[in-house]
Amino acid sequence: MAESLSRIGLAGLAVMGQNLALNIAEKGFPISVYNRTTSKVDETVERAKREGNLHLRGFHDPKSFVQSIQKPRVVIMLVKAGAPVDQTIQTLSTYMEKGDCIIDGGNEWYENTERREKAAAELGLLYLGMGVSGGEEGARHGPSLMPGGSFEAYKYIEDIVLKVAAQVPDSGPCVTYIGKGGSGNFVKMIHNGIEYGDMQLIAEAYDVLKSVGKLSNEELHEVFAEWNRGELLSFLIEITADIFSIKDNKGDGYLVDKVLDKTGMKGTGKWTVQQAADLSVAAPTIASSLDSRFLSGLKDERVEAAKVFKHGGMDDIISGDHGFVDKSKLIDEVRKALYASKICSYAQGMNLIRAKSVEKGWDLKLGELARIWKGGCIIRAIFLDRIKQAYDRNSELANLLVDPEFAKEIVERQSAWRRVVCLAINSGISTPGMCASLAYFDTYRRERLPANLVQAQRDYFGAHTYERTDMPGSFHTEWFKIAKQAKM
Amino acid sequence: MAESLSRIGLAGLAVMGQNLALNIAEKGFPISVYNRTTSKVDETVERAKREGNLHLRGFHDPKSFVQSIQKPRVVIMLVKAGAPVDQTIQTLSTYMEKGDCIIDGGNEWYENTERREKAAAELGLLYLGMGVSGGEEGARHGPSLMPGGSFEAYKYIEDIVLKVAAQVPDSGPCVTYIGKGGSGNFVKMIHNGIEYGDMQLIAEAYDVLKSVGKLSNEELHEVFAEWNRGELLSFLIEITADIFSIKDNKGDGYLVDKVLDKTGMKGTGKWTVQQAADLSVAAPTIASSLDSRFLSGLKDERVEAAKVFKHGGMDDIISGDHGFVDKSKLIDEVRKALYASKICSYAQGMNLIRAKSVEKGWDLKLGELARIWKGGCIIRAIFLDRIKQAYDRNSELANLLVDPEFAKEIVERQSAWRRVVCLAINSGISTPGMCASLAYFDTYRRERLPANLVQAQRDYFGAHTYERTDMPGSFHTEWFKIAKQAKM
Repeated sequence: MAESLSRIGLAGLAVMGQNLALNIAEKGFPISVYNRTTSKVDETVERAKREGNLHLRGFHDPKSFVQSIQKPRVVIMLVKAGAPVDQTIQTLSTYMEKGDCIIDGGNEWYENTERREKAAAELGLLYLGMGVSGGEEGARHGPSLMPGGSFEAYKYIEDIVLKVAAQVPDSGPCVTYIGKGGSGNFVKMIHNGIEYGDMQLIAEAYDVLKSVGKLSNEELHEVFAEWNRGELLSFLIEITADIFSIKDNKGDGYLVDKVLDKTGMKGTGKWTVQQAADLSVAAPTIASSLDSRFLSGLKDERVEAAKVFKHGGMDDIISGDHGFVDKSKLIDEVRKALYASKICSYAQGMNLIRAKSVEKGWDLKLGELARIWKGGCIIRAIFLDRIKQAYDRNSELANLLVDPEFAKEIVERQSAWRRVVCLAINSGISTPGMCASLAYFDTYRRERLPANLVQAQRDYFGAHTYERTDMPGSFHTEWFKIAKQAKM
Repeated sequence: MAESLSRIGLAGLAVMGQNLALNIAEKGFPISVYNRTTSKVDETVERAKREGNLHLRGFHDPKSFVQSIQKPRVVIMLVKAGAPVDQTIQTLSTYMEKGDCIIDGGNEWYENTERREKAAAELGLLYLGMGVSGGEEGARHGPSLMPGGSFEAYKYIEDIVLKVAAQVPDSGPCVTYIGKGGSGNFVKMIHNGIEYGDMQLIAEAYDVLKSVGKLSNEELHEVFAEWNRGELLSFLIEITADIFSIKDNKGDGYLVDKVLDKTGMKGTGKWTVQQAADLSVAAPTIASSLDSRFLSGLKDERVEAAKVFKHGGMDDIISGDHGFVDKSKLIDEVRKALYASKICSYAQGMNLIRAKSVEKGWDLKLGELARIWKGGCIIRAIFLDRIKQAYDRNSELANLLVDPEFAKEIVERQSAWRRVVCLAINSGISTPGMCASLAYFDTYRRERLPANLVQAQRDYFGAHTYERTDMPGSFHTEWFKIAKQAKM
């Protein structure tokens, strides 16, 4: 095999890169791999051998790596976003030729991809920014892939990605050509924002069940396992059930109780929230998940604050008669609240994608995105099939909330949803994500908001003008003068 | 007077510039004014004459304008943020000399100010970015001024700004040297973010009182006028009371009911939310006000959504027994909810400023900022005195919530706050700002959050590791393998 050329190359052999390379090789595509720290190359080659994988070859220098790939050459990079990507491109492009293609598989900021695509074009190279979701397991056995950029480059690799991506019965491989420019990275970024939202909502459900409902870890395991057989069936619910089943091997009890309540983050959630503000799209559920991570990080301050308020007469959990007679009713209502909140969160994420698509002229297909998220990625869920169907029914749907099926589901769950949120509020348990989703719903479905007062205030102090409900035009009132005269 | 030199110059004679120029002249400082569209110059000169103001002179060309000012020359620009500022600097600097000073009084992005300060320094010019708050009225009769940048430049104008700024009994003129670089613009930006939050919270109080409490505009006028005599005493509450008193001169009834429920915005709220994400500071109340403005803009979609859910069996206002027996109790509890929510919003804003100050080494004094906001600006309120006192007690206060006085006030109001939010939720009225504040409070004061689950999930699918509550270090668990073994 050493003499023949590889079908594709992969540079960057950290966890994601190594696993994706093995996946590609396993699907029968001869692959060359390279890493700047060469021990990673040897490690990958060894691992491939152990797995009986014959289609992977390692290289210690970039030149022979690039030259080992058949033309037009395709190299996937899986290196840290930012400067390392630029460095890798520089190294590889030295040995690449016109018509060759570079693919960035990292969580890159979409504008960087657009800049690099232009720079690559000047060298005659094609470029793709390809979101890869599914973590280590997904990369190895079938991720969700979101390639955007050069369509010609996509066509070069289509046969590979169709086989490498997760395969979902009835809906096919979890990959599609997303669109031009940085659209692949942008869609992956929103995917991660939605993932933040899902994780936050699940954490809130956990909190209510544990802190108010007093469920044990065994019971929580049972509840999430049960939920994973219904409308909430998803990877995140499944792993949550698993987590509650795992005992601490360093002490007594369950491991989850020993995990410190501080959540890390890597940037895509932050970008999502900042893009939402840029696009004038409300994404409060996703934002609440980011804020919760920020506040989780202030552990020392929280410990101090808890003392201040305990001293002030408040307990952590405010007890009282919360109107729930039994656990099974509580569990049922929390499930409904979680599901309804989730619909709102996805509505926000999909509308972010649409707004960006309009701004950039990407012409993204929301239903198709829901389809490729059905497998491989962290947010994979049976729920995504419902979203796909909603956009199949109406590709111009203004908001998932007004799809007839989702609207019906929300109406059926809204009483439970309101009860759970109020129960949490009255128990002193914060459910910022569920609250944000509910406020989003109650704002979006409201014909008349109190925004008239805010606009009147703006006209009062800043002469920003206002529109009227009963006639067209732009109006300004001398509110101060009129009120002053009336007082005299 | 034509032969003598002016003490200062002002370029840009739209509403804010014209009013600030007249204010400066009225305080006895000879001022030269200039505007590219010269009719604005004549208009300003005419207005000064009408007002009997002898200290203002107009110029139609930038050269004679600059040369009419005594050295070292100081020119305040009040032009649109962005490119117009760069153009104005270019025009003015042509005629300025080393040691002269340019001040930008607009709502500029702080990084632009830092860029310009550096560019000005290369020409030997000093530069200030000075936030000016208070709208038209404030500019004319006493704004709150937030100058940041060159301390030397601040010293040149200190005698002027001390007289031009709003004067507050017992706490002095509403101006102070904020700090280096773009700190003046940054602080003004956060001021505006806080203003967004205040306006949103007032709108929610209005909504609950009107939609659930069925208060008339006359009653709302009375309520806000009454609130303006107590702890909520502030400019925004005062103008809200005024607004409810004004009849529609184009039809029957009150004007506020004819104002379309769409709120505009100009950028500082958006920047605040984006900066919060950058700084890892939770600012959910301010964010909710931005989201509410976004959703208010979707009037047509909201009208359609209201139909969908009415058809689905939901009324706009969900009636039911909400546990409030009388209006006066509701009014009292809404006031408490508003006040407690406001504390959380200001806590977010102040912590944003602190985080940026630490990042940039600005060494900002939070108590001093509260002091200069006590008069002149849109958020001026008796409440700011309490904030100043909190930082006087402890300049290192981690969060306003844990100041003993504020903590006490919140504890006293928390039951009412929770009841109002739940009342709104059960009525189908969204109170996103009050909900966000309450969730912020309940999260911040909580020793143990469900963030342990989120971190366990991250370690499960992404090997992101976690800390433990009972021992130091960073841990990773093979959750999947352990759970799989347990299932076998």
